[in-house]
Amino acid sequence: VVSVGLHLLVDLHGSDPVRLKNVELVKTCLPGAAAKCGMTAMGPPVLHQFPGQGVTGVLVLKESHISVHTWPEHAFAALDIFTCGPADPRKAVDFIKQLLGASASRTVTVDRG
Amino acid sequence: VVSVGLHLLVDLHGSDPVRLKNVELVKTCLPGAAAKCGMTAMGPPVLHQFPGQGVTGVLVLKESHISVHTWPEHAFAALDIFTCGPADPRKAVDFIKQLLGASASRTVTVDRG
Repeated sequence: VVSVGLHLLVDLHGSDPVRLKNVELVKTCLPGAAAKCGMTAMGPPVLHQFPGQGVTGVLVLKESHISVHTWPEHAFAALDIFTCGPADPRKAVDFIKQLLGASASRTVTVDRG
Repeated sequence: VVSVGLHLLVDLHGSDPVRLKNVELVKTCLPGAAAKCGMTAMGPPVLHQFPGQGVTGVLVLKESHISVHTWPEHAFAALDIFTCGPADPRKAVDFIKQLLGASASRTVTVDRG
């Protein structure tokens, strides 16, 4: 058995629906979150705006990936961060939580490997 | 509290290292896995080959996303599938497990929301 890294699944509740529809905000927050914990993006984020609804954003990292999916109608965002190496993914979580204006969060942490 | 979908984190052990280095195989397996459970890709997969090492592949779906990260040196692949809606993500897991030749798997399922 080998441990390759930590995978955090973070449910963010009570976020601002206007921010959760804002694809430009999600586009900015992903590289910003990676930078906060010294992770390296392997390209630009992949983004998809569902017309009048939520946003999907994924950033592939040297250390694995970050994804955000939003549901403005539920003031909810689902975040996952998978990091290999010494980076502390909790800093990325705090950054995105603040940027989306979430009032509550629940994190499930899984040691992958 | 709202449930938006299931997020499966699947550790695949005992995979063939040659397959785990094969970016073309990963490129094929992601849309194939999505098709197996009737999910819709929102574009081509994003791929990264670490020279002489593993592969990262991410496919953004209408129903959320699938990612695969491989470690040929550990005969290991880390898979995550986040699906919203009626699709059964277990069919996608079985498809990728078979394609990568994994002999064992461990799945953590998280109800997101």
